[in-house]
Order: sequence, then structure tokens, then C-alpha cells
Amino acid sequence: MKTTEKLVSFVQETSYKDFPREVIHQAKRCFLDLIGVALGGARQPVVQILIKIVKETGGKPQATVLSHGFKTSTLNAALINGAMAHALDFDDTHIGSIIHPSAPVIPAVLALGERLKSTGKSALEAFVIGYEVETRIGLGLGRRHYDRGWHTTSTCGRFGAAVAAGKLLGLSSLQLSRAMGLAATQASGLRLAFGTMTKPFHPGKSAFDGLLSALLAQKDFTCPPNMLEGPKGFAEALGDDDTNLNRMAKDLGRKYEILNNTFKPYAACLLTHPTIDGVFELKDRYHLKPDEIAEISCEIARFCLDAAGQQEPKTGLAGKFSIYYCAALPLVEATAGEDMFTDKKVQDPQMVALRKKVKTRINPALKDTEARVTIATQDGKKYSAFIDKPKGDPRNPPTDSELEHKFRSLSVNALPQRNIDAVIESVWNLDKIKNVGSLMKLVS
Amino acid sequence: MKTTEKLVSFVQETSYKDFPREVIHQAKRCFLDLIGVALGGARQPVVQILIKIVKETGGKPQATVLSHGFKTSTLNAALINGAMAHALDFDDTHIGSIIHPSAPVIPAVLALGERLKSTGKSALEAFVIGYEVETRIGLGLGRRHYDRGWHTTSTCGRFGAAVAAGKLLGLSSLQLSRAMGLAATQASGLRLAFGTMTKPFHPGKSAFDGLLSALLAQKDFTCPPNMLEGPKGFAEALGDDDTNLNRMAKDLGRKYEILNNTFKPYAACLLTHPTIDGVFELKDRYHLKPDEIAEISCEIARFCLDAAGQQEPKTGLAGKFSIYYCAALPLVEATAGEDMFTDKKVQDPQMVALRKKVKTRINPALKDTEARVTIATQDGKKYSAFIDKPKGDPRNPPTDSELEHKFRSLSVNALPQRNIDAVIESVWNLDKIKNVGSLMKLVS
Repeated sequence: MKTTEKLVSFVQETSYKDFPREVIHQAKRCFLDLIGVALGGARQPVVQILIKIVKETGGKPQATVLSHGFKTSTLNAALINGAMAHALDFDDTHIGSIIHPSAPVIPAVLALGERLKSTGKSALEAFVIGYEVETRIGLGLGRRHYDRGWHTTSTCGRFGAAVAAGKLLGLSSLQLSRAMGLAATQASGLRLAFGTMTKPFHPGKSAFDGLLSALLAQKDFTCPPNMLEGPKGFAEALGDDDTNLNRMAKDLGRKYEILNNTFKPYAACLLTHPTIDGVFELKDRYHLKPDEIAEISCEIARFCLDAAGQQEPKTGLAGKFSIYYCAALPLVEATAGEDMFTDKKVQDPQMVALRKKVKTRINPALKDTEARVTIATQDGKKYSAFIDKPKGDPRNPPTDSELEHKFRSLSVNALPQRNIDAVIESVWNLDKIKNVGSLMKLVS
Repeated sequence: MKTTEKLVSFVQETSYKDFPREVIHQAKRCFLDLIGVALGGARQPVVQILIKIVKETGGKPQATVLSHGFKTSTLNAALINGAMAHALDFDDTHIGSIIHPSAPVIPAVLALGERLKSTGKSALEAFVIGYEVETRIGLGLGRRHYDRGWHTTSTCGRFGAAVAAGKLLGLSSLQLSRAMGLAATQASGLRLAFGTMTKPFHPGKSAFDGLLSALLAQKDFTCPPNMLEGPKGFAEALGDDDTNLNRMAKDLGRKYEILNNTFKPYAACLLTHPTIDGVFELKDRYHLKPDEIAEISCEIARFCLDAAGQQEPKTGLAGKFSIYYCAALPLVEATAGEDMFTDKKVQDPQMVALRKKVKTRINPALKDTEARVTIATQDGKKYSAFIDKPKGDPRNPPTDSELEHKFRSLSVNALPQRNIDAVIESVWNLDKIKNVGSLMKLVS
């Protein structure tokens, strides 16, 4: 059986009742976290511009744009909500495939589910399946795809959105393989765009293109059913010498990648997280104060400096990609949420003085999830901590109430208090909701 | 100066008055040919499905869908008309870059021009500039980009649509470089889709994505201005070891690639054209009849069998990619237009018998535009012809009246006769038209 066939069989033959209980619960956690980070990003300029474009070009009022009180077409809603979900770079991550998995998929599921009046169970089912397919395609492509410049959230996210939408639409196997082919032929997104509005545009456009793929396939639009693995197809054109199609379907339906999801506790680049954890740990254990610090020495993985090496950040966004700012922050503040990454905060003289005391050293033996932090105080003492399971990591996951807390802090300016409570309630009971439209009303 | 800067300067600083007269005339020929092949493809299933999707999802009535009597958003119109233009695979080709250059650009120009009430001059200006940028990016990428599986019409066409739309919108240099970056980050399209509806979908989606890029850039959507040449950007991710950025800007503004445009006289794969010419030439010169043929021996370039090697075509579409059918056709018919590539014609017993007499031999020394045809008759005679400048090639271009004839034959079922005459008149006078909307009314 070809890889596409295996993935399509999984999509076709798997239903909600096959999911282990922890998969369903994890899926709800993803919905809660994703809707929260989207609400937190709802007023970002990237979202405002996309809304202008959509209002200018029009679309039937089929699906809700989060937090803006209007509906547009399913395609447009998926575009805007997908970008909104990644606007703060605070959404979840599947580390193995380097994909932000929920942002391209959940907006497509919500937009189409609202139009189709799908049940909460169907939405959960479609999302788990989309998550699985996109991350497995990413795992099979291998790391060099990302190294070459591809933004995997964008290139692979389309597949997740396409099969999730296809599942909701009840596509046949042939239609599903064509939907995947249409996703393959639209696969794009370059990492060079990081740091601009184009980064969050990627999952939005993936949601749009993936949904479009499923809608076309539903109408028997033709596309070769082997675009993923066929000669000179997706894997050959976008893959590299570590691409291995067999990895994509390994233990499919037996192991669920969604259980390897990382939820970000801090509103910064994921690679800064072990360091942030280390500084928090030392501060708490030794009651360190900002003005007694002589040096903060961070031993980190190579990739961390590559992604988050900004030495003199001037904006909140740049602060998220500055290991220097991120290492200083926990000494001053009790949290590292979105409100700690404003331009004002990043330029605050105390923060600037403190981040100048941060030294970094790459240790090639460290994994991306590891860091060793050593803080030297003015009185000549040294304190050290090693982090190997940072907060949010699947081995050190947030509790449900920590996720609720994150949701509340992000949605506080986007929704009335009673809706915040109701959304949390609705998501935990998503499997019992008859029409996802009722959830969408709450986040409208 | 970086490549993007050079291309952007060209877009910014070049205006209609800088074009040599033959460039303007050639651009009009492209409009006439492209609108004709689109009208000829207007009833194809690929178009019908896209129209269904667009009607389902909606859009403001801003721009005309050709031959269907309704308007939709600029984006949607560009999508449908772009696919319509390539539905018959009968549109023009820029051989150096292996791009069908007009299909991703003219639909974007017409859709946006209609909304903006642009003059015919502005539309010609935008198109020539879009043509230039997309083909030069294709030339710079090199042949291995295509060999790897990329459909250049799709990957590079987006740039053409983006800068053409950007020119119509009067974008600043920074905005233009961002529009190109947004085109780069959406660049996609795989050759494996050839032979399905997904192939014509590619230029339609390129027109859509390119236009979207320009509309976003107009609203100051941010994107790095060096996505084309930046580290791990478009050229690195999608290029190969023969990619050469310097080729993109060579003689820019002095030599116009539009003068190297090939207009297809036959409704088949371009690589079959030298062979078709050869058979027509022998038939005419020696008055050959189908029933006296013993063998039709074709010596062709390697790439021809690669692209058009179908031995036993069953459908009209497959016939277009069958050198066997294409070599037999001229012995029976006087033309090789769209009506010669129906399922019925391809399955006609006389045609089947004749195509079985076709033998092919690859000669690696032949160029893609060359073929040697030798016909042996039942009475033991042999006749041979060598073609090196096939009809439609820039060295053997169609006359204006041949293009008019092609237009008439393709639009006859799509428009009333008086509109056909009026469209031809309008296109030859495009530089004098105050609002391209008047042309769009005629093709509505």
C-alpha cells in the first residue's frame, strides 16, 4: 500500500469511538489553547489587514471570525482565524515535525463545522485526524525539509486542514486522496518570512488552501491520487535526502502524535523555554533579586541561538526571539505571558540592563528542550540549574487549570467575562455539543 | 543591487511609453490569444467546478467571469478565468522558462483592472511587466527546477500576477518587494498533476495568490523584501544547482521576453508541434492520402516522449499528449485545432489504425523545437521533412489574421458573433480603451 493510501485508510476508517480517552481529552485541550491564543491575537495588525481584504472582496456569511462579530465564507474565516491563531506565536507545537499543528487545522474545522452544523464530536474527530496526518507527513519529510527553508506548519498544515475538512464532508477514499493531492500541489511557505506578518499568514493560508482542496475534491475535481509519493511529486520536490515515506504511516492508528503536543506556557520562541524555566527555578529556590545579579550564563542547544539569537531586541515581537531578554525576564516578573512581550517592556531600562548580563554558550550535546542556567550574584556566589523537561513539554504538560488560566489571560480583552466561562465549559464538553455553531456564537 | 531590487526597479520605473512598438503589439496578440483559449475552455468541467465553489462561498460582484454572465470578487474571477485560460492547454508558452505566461497574469490584470476601472494602456503595461518578471524568474531558476517536479507556470506565474497587480495598484517599491515575497511564500504547483484538472487549476490559483499578494502589500502587510534571493528563501528552497539569480535581471528593460512568446497553432502539447508541422508539410507537398501510408517515422527530442509519449490515448486530453495521435492527425484532417481533440475523434477507428503506424525514435541531438518526419507509402516510397522552426515559434510566428482565426474558432460557441468581432476590434485597440470594463462586458 502506498503512503497516501495508508493515510487515507486511516482517515476513512477511524472514527471518534476509536480514540483512546486521553486523545479526546488532549484534543479538547488543543481547542481551548488554540481558541485562547487566537483571541489573544485578535487585535494584531496582521488580523486587521486580512479582515480588510476579506471585507473588500466579500463572501457569504457562513462562518464566524473570532472576536470580530461578523461572519464570512468558510474559506475566508479559516484564513483569518488561522492567522489569528498564530499571530502571537503562542500556539501549540509538535516538536518532532516542527509544526504548529492546531493553527492550520482547528480554524478549518470550526469554519466548515459551523457551516455544516457539525456536532462537537465530529469536530474533535476531524481535528485529531488532521493533526495526525499533518504531523506524520512532517515526520516523514524529515528535518532537512525545514533546514532548506520550508516552514513545515505551512507546507504540512495544508494536509491536516484538507483531511480534517474531508472527514467532516464525508469524502470517499478517492476524493480524500485527491484532496491530499490538491494540498500537495499548493504546499508552500518559507521560513525566511519569520518575524513578519507573513509567518502567521502561513497557517491561515494553509487552512484556506486545505479547506479549498477538500471542497474541490467533494465536487470530483480530479488530481492524481499519489501526489504525496508519486515520482517528482510532493516528497521528491519538497523533501530531502532524509525524507522517509515509511515513517509517515508507522503505528498509524495505534500511536497518536497529538499526545506529543507541547503547549506553550510562555509567549516566546519555544527554544527559549528551558532557559526561562531554569531562571524561574533558581530565582524561586534561592530568592534571587534582579539587582544582585552579576551574570546569567546560559548553556543552550545550537538551534536556540539560530532561532532566538536576537541580542538587542527593540520590540515585543523581537523579545520573543531573544534568549537574552527571555533569560532576564523571570528575574523581574512572575510570569512570561503575552503581556511581558510588549515594546515598552522590552525597552524598559531595568530589562535592558539585566539582559546585557546574559551570556550564551552553545553546547552541541544539548537537545532543543534542554538548557543549563548558571546565575552568578554580586557577592560571588553561583547557582546552577539544568532543565530537560521544560514546562509545556509532553513530559511536563500543563494541567487543565493551567490551560484555563492561560485561556482566561488571553481572552480577557476579547470576550465578555460570562462568555469566557462559557467557552471553557463548552470546550470541556465539546463531545456533547450538538452543533459547533453554538461554540462559535460564544467566541464571535 | 539585489535581484528583487532590480526587478522592483524595473516594475516601478518602466511605463507604457518605454515599450518598443513590437512589444505593445505582441502584448495585444497575447490578450487576443489568451481570451480566445479561455472562451474555448469556458465549458470544461474544471471551470464548472470552480464556479460552483465560488457561488457556494460568495464574493462581491467586482469582476467578470468570462462567458458565464456573472461577476464575483477580483480574487475569485482571477481564479476561474486563470483556470479557464489553461483548460484546453492551448495557451501561449515561453519556451526558455517553460512557462505558460499569459494564463496566470492576464486574468489577474483583467479582474483588478475591471474593479479599478483601469485604462487599456494600464492593463497592457501591467501585463508586459508581469510577463517579464515571471519569465525572468523562471529563466534564473533554471531547468532543474522543472525537472525536480515543479510546474513553473504555477511557481513563477504568481510573481507575474503579483507585480502586474502591484503595478495597477501603484504600489511603492517596498510594497512591491513585499508583494513578491508573498508570491514567493505561496509558490507551489507540481507537474505530477499534469493530465488532471489540477493542471489548469495551477495558473488560476497563481492568479489568485499573486493578486492576493499585491492586495496585502497595498495594505502594508509585512514580508521580508528579499524572499526571492535571501538565505533559505525562494531560490534556495525551490531552485537547484543550475539556479542563477544574475540571469533574472540580465538586459532587463532592454530585451523583452514577450518577444520570445510562442502561440500554439495546434491544440496539443507544444512538443508535438514540430512533428505535426512535418506531417502537414509532407502531406501537402506530396499529396499523401491516409490509406496509402505504410509508416510514419518520427525522430524527436527526448523531452517530447517524456511529455507526450502516450501510445494508446483514449480521450481527447490524452490525444494532446500523444505524439502517435498527433503525427497521424494531419494526414486525415486539415487542421489540428481544439475540435480535433475530442474523445470521439481519438477513438475513431481510422485514427487508431493510422496512429499504430507511427514509430518514434529519440535523437538526443534534436532540440525541443525540432523533428524529422519520414513517411513511407505502401508503394515503397519515402518522403522526409525536417522542421526546426515550428509554426507559432517566435521565429515562425502566426500572423495577426491567423490569431484572429484561432480566436474566432474558439469563441464561436461562447459569444454571439457581434461580440466576437467587437472583442477582436477592442483588443487591437486596447491602448485606446478608457476602461477595461468595456472589454469585459463583451466577453461576459
